[in-house]
Amino acid sequence: MTSLSKLGEFGLIDRIKRSVFTDASVIKGIGDDCAVLKYDSKNYQLLTSDMVTEGVDFLFGEDPYFIGRKSLAVSLSDIASCCGVARYFMVSLGLPEKYPVSSVDKIFLGMRALADEFGLSLIGGDITKAARLLIDVTVLGSVKKNRLALRGGARLKDIIFVTGEIGGSLKGKHLKFTPRLREAGYLAKNFKINAMIDISDGLTQDLGHILQQSKKGARIYEDLIPLSPEASGLKKALHEGEDFELLFTLPQAEAKRLLGAKIRFFQPIGEIIPEKYGLRLVDKKGKETKIKPEGFLHFRAK
Amino acid sequence: MTSLSKLGEFGLIDRIKRSVFTDASVIKGIGDDCAVLKYDSKNYQLLTSDMVTEGVDFLFGEDPYFIGRKSLAVSLSDIASCCGVARYFMVSLGLPEKYPVSSVDKIFLGMRALADEFGLSLIGGDITKAARLLIDVTVLGSVKKNRLALRGGARLKDIIFVTGEIGGSLKGKHLKFTPRLREAGYLAKNFKINAMIDISDGLTQDLGHILQQSKKGARIYEDLIPLSPEASGLKKALHEGEDFELLFTLPQAEAKRLLGAKIRFFQPIGEIIPEKYGLRLVDKKGKETKIKPEGFLHFRAK
Repeated sequence: MTSLSKLGEFGLIDRIKRSVFTDASVIKGIGDDCAVLKYDSKNYQLLTSDMVTEGVDFLFGEDPYFIGRKSLAVSLSDIASCCGVARYFMVSLGLPEKYPVSSVDKIFLGMRALADEFGLSLIGGDITKAARLLIDVTVLGSVKKNRLALRGGARLKDIIFVTGEIGGSLKGKHLKFTPRLREAGYLAKNFKINAMIDISDGLTQDLGHILQQSKKGARIYEDLIPLSPEASGLKKALHEGEDFELLFTLPQAEAKRLLGAKIRFFQPIGEIIPEKYGLRLVDKKGKETKIKPEGFLHFRAK
Repeated sequence: MTSLSKLGEFGLIDRIKRSVFTDASVIKGIGDDCAVLKYDSKNYQLLTSDMVTEGVDFLFGEDPYFIGRKSLAVSLSDIASCCGVARYFMVSLGLPEKYPVSSVDKIFLGMRALADEFGLSLIGGDITKAARLLIDVTVLGSVKKNRLALRGGARLKDIIFVTGEIGGSLKGKHLKFTPRLREAGYLAKNFKINAMIDISDGLTQDLGHILQQSKKGARIYEDLIPLSPEASGLKKALHEGEDFELLFTLPQAEAKRLLGAKIRFFQPIGEIIPEKYGLRLVDKKGKETKIKPEGFLHFRAK
């Protein structure tokens, strides 16, 4: 009997993906940050679901306001990584029987604050009993056709960028981060993005998704990675996840223009190289090593 | 401290609803079977989420094929009750660590069978670790503007109908029912439906939602209720839920036409009366009693 811990999370997703049929109105189905659907002549529709649960995404006793806020923020981060605008959200709540109503109120206050900031409407959901607190948020949004960024678009010699700072998110940022919708909007309006993903499971693992879907390799430079003051060293920061920053690639000419704008928030960290070289890390002494994409997995293949 | 069991499920939903702002593109937000959104000149978009969990919607050891099938079917039942067509679905899975991959396969096979029957595409989702098996399905669909049926449209003297048979669903039907999309399509195409809901929590409780939102009362007749052979008596059948049949009201002229079509599947069970009379049950001897809407609640107010 194959167990989940043997197959691993991505093995399972591949297995599900293999058996799926979608019609021509589905521009992108399983396997990116959002599902992308035909909408009107100028826009696609975006749909994404993310479930946060006690013991995985937050701990028992954490402030419900920030648990609620995070449950919406992780889906907004997915909309951002497709360069979209978020419009509506649905909330499915699994609640332990004795969960205090005042905490439910706080969960919704936290969501509300973020929803107001980005102009979303709460339009429905479901409530059920659960052993542990669990929140599944679905966000419906849209993106201009010519702005859509996906994981599979990286090209040879593209420059790889990240927003903000990496590492140490589990010390607090993961509950309080601002999804990079505004930054994605600025980028999409002014630059041609070839590929984009949000860093939820770890920089190297999420870069690995871009590389796998683009059939490319990458070289990244240790001394270019913008480490957070909270980070516990570079090695850990590359893999630990929950940064919810954007990771994207630009053609060289576009990269030059972005660098010319001198916005420190967008940091170049490496370049796209042929697939056969894999993912390579250059340390501070200039020594290059091949590394494996690694990060958080709900079910780790053994 | 107010606990959920004190406030009750509908108290909680009302509490959430009160603090919600939606913009003009939201035709119907929280409080109906689906959220209804502006789409194009002829259609609205429909979005609905339903979460099924072990111990509430199915028991440990139940066939995963039918658990998967049901998790999609309950959302399709919501689309049916708005007279819509289902197009896409997303699946968020909460899986216990040792859950067998072969059972995950069966869950998706069960969903797939139903998705193929009604022409839906699986377009994404999320997987996370959970203490108990849990499936949250979101369905995106659409409805022709002139066909949309909601809970709040019942009018005085409307005739109340149900599809199929009521009661005893927990003996097996609840895992194997066919969502009434075809029946809703037939009705919407040929008749003017004033109000509709699906019976998920119990006939009287779901009729109660129509009455509350339409500000009306109702009189239903014991000897008209189409009891399932599986039902354990009428009283229980009125309240126990999980029937996933449609409950709807038609103006008298429309009702006559439907009755003229002599389709036994659509059974008249009573009529809409003024709100002040509440919900009334006429027994087989003609005696009328006022009853309370009652049914399944995830959190029962005390």
